[in-house]
Amino acid sequence: MTVRPHTPEWPGRARLRRGEVWLVGAGPGDPGLMTLHGLAAIEEADVVVHDALVDARILGWTRPGAALEDMGKRGGRCSPKQPAITRRLIAHARAGRRVVRLKGGDPFVFGRGGEEAEALASAGIPFRIVPGVTAGIGGLAYAGIPATHRDVNQAVTFVTGHDQSGRLPAALDWEALAKGSPVIVLYMAVRTLPAIAEALMAAGRAGSEPVAVVMNATRPDQRVLETTLSRVAADLAQSRLKAPSVICIGEVVSHRRLLDWAGGMEGATPLADAAV
Amino acid sequence: MTVRPHTPEWPGRARLRRGEVWLVGAGPGDPGLMTLHGLAAIEEADVVVHDALVDARILGWTRPGAALEDMGKRGGRCSPKQPAITRRLIAHARAGRRVVRLKGGDPFVFGRGGEEAEALASAGIPFRIVPGVTAGIGGLAYAGIPATHRDVNQAVTFVTGHDQSGRLPAALDWEALAKGSPVIVLYMAVRTLPAIAEALMAAGRAGSEPVAVVMNATRPDQRVLETTLSRVAADLAQSRLKAPSVICIGEVVSHRRLLDWAGGMEGATPLADAAV
Repeated sequence: MTVRPHTPEWPGRARLRRGEVWLVGAGPGDPGLMTLHGLAAIEEADVVVHDALVDARILGWTRPGAALEDMGKRGGRCSPKQPAITRRLIAHARAGRRVVRLKGGDPFVFGRGGEEAEALASAGIPFRIVPGVTAGIGGLAYAGIPATHRDVNQAVTFVTGHDQSGRLPAALDWEALAKGSPVIVLYMAVRTLPAIAEALMAAGRAGSEPVAVVMNATRPDQRVLETTLSRVAADLAQSRLKAPSVICIGEVVSHRRLLDWAGGMEGATPLADAAV
Repeated sequence: MTVRPHTPEWPGRARLRRGEVWLVGAGPGDPGLMTLHGLAAIEEADVVVHDALVDARILGWTRPGAALEDMGKRGGRCSPKQPAITRRLIAHARAGRRVVRLKGGDPFVFGRGGEEAEALASAGIPFRIVPGVTAGIGGLAYAGIPATHRDVNQAVTFVTGHDQSGRLPAALDWEALAKGSPVIVLYMAVRTLPAIAEALMAAGRAGSEPVAVVMNATRPDQRVLETTLSRVAADLAQSRLKAPSVICIGEVVSHRRLLDWAGGMEGATPLADAAV
């Protein structure tokens, strides 16, 4: 096997500089889904400010002496407030450090990256967004579920399952979503999924519609619960699945039958279907 | 600057083997948005079967002697039919080659990757999906537009703007999409955008709602047209913007004011706003 040992270079390639903050999406978990910009920034950073969900193997790519700051939990189960995180980023940048803000998935998909970047912009800190593979696409792909399929859907909707208080966001119009979105992908919705399934069925979606809950998507301990809209509340309660999970509602789930490469491929990480 | 010269390794990392096909998402254009799995597969491949949209800098990463097959156009403007592409992939794999099928963006987002993978599965060819950064998230991020923002939307819908015949897909319910999806991201919709804007306004969306058309997203020649739902048809006709473009409809577009890092960052690739 011929593998070139160097990461490629190309004209105009950006570099993380002193006093800059790069908001980097780490992807859903598998280190192989990190981008080249993300890898370079992590390797060059003086400090990496990261969320709880970022895989330890990715954090291991920092250079000796680089600081790691875990903003996912501190002193127990409490997360630092958003203003505290942005204050840290601004302080590091003003001290002339090369700063990576590392977030699971993509920074602009339900990750509050927009708020963090706006705080940096308002403070006059130069920043760059490094998009990442989002769990609603890449995580589902590792469960053999295509977010879109020509035979099923010309539209797919990504929804967050809770608001700041942990409740179902009041602004969501489930009747319109049920009618307009043949495939609905839910983030952070394990707790609110029974209520969401009820709302979708009340709006006319069939109870027999396939649903998949994918826990720890793309990681070696990925588990998949395949069920239906009418059974998901009971099946989820019986399973031991919990957050972090990405959920897919729609006929694309049935395409797992042929597309479940991670379960069927020689040499692939063994990924178990959940016993329910 | 300390940059480690080697791409990282980790336990259980998958390798492209003889007789396998990996469907790799190349991302929207910027080579820095390629994933580590994607880079390794391209470097290891005996043959790379790619679309027209894949950046030439990425194709340059193949090893000496690897074959490149352009499925984006052949003998003129005609693209090979889908069955011809899958036949090529199957033949290469059966000949014992290491095969990369390289597609712009993500293979499972309006890219017909699901169909290709199902054809491989049916033929008994081992395959792997390597997700990529999709233009509707990463491309918009390079224009300073967050696909989601806590102040704006708890849902975002991705829609393809044409069906197999090039027309607006008949199955789309624009009234439901208008009600349920505060932010709508359109792929392959430059031609059908005037009709889509009309349908959304007829369903109650305000003519003053911001719209951005991002051509060649993430590439050095990226151009952004920022307008509104009522003006987009006229502005688009006056501009020289054409495919490939990704389009965003919703209040997140107004967040460009602070978030347009690519236009404002020292050392960033200069990206011009379109004159209209």
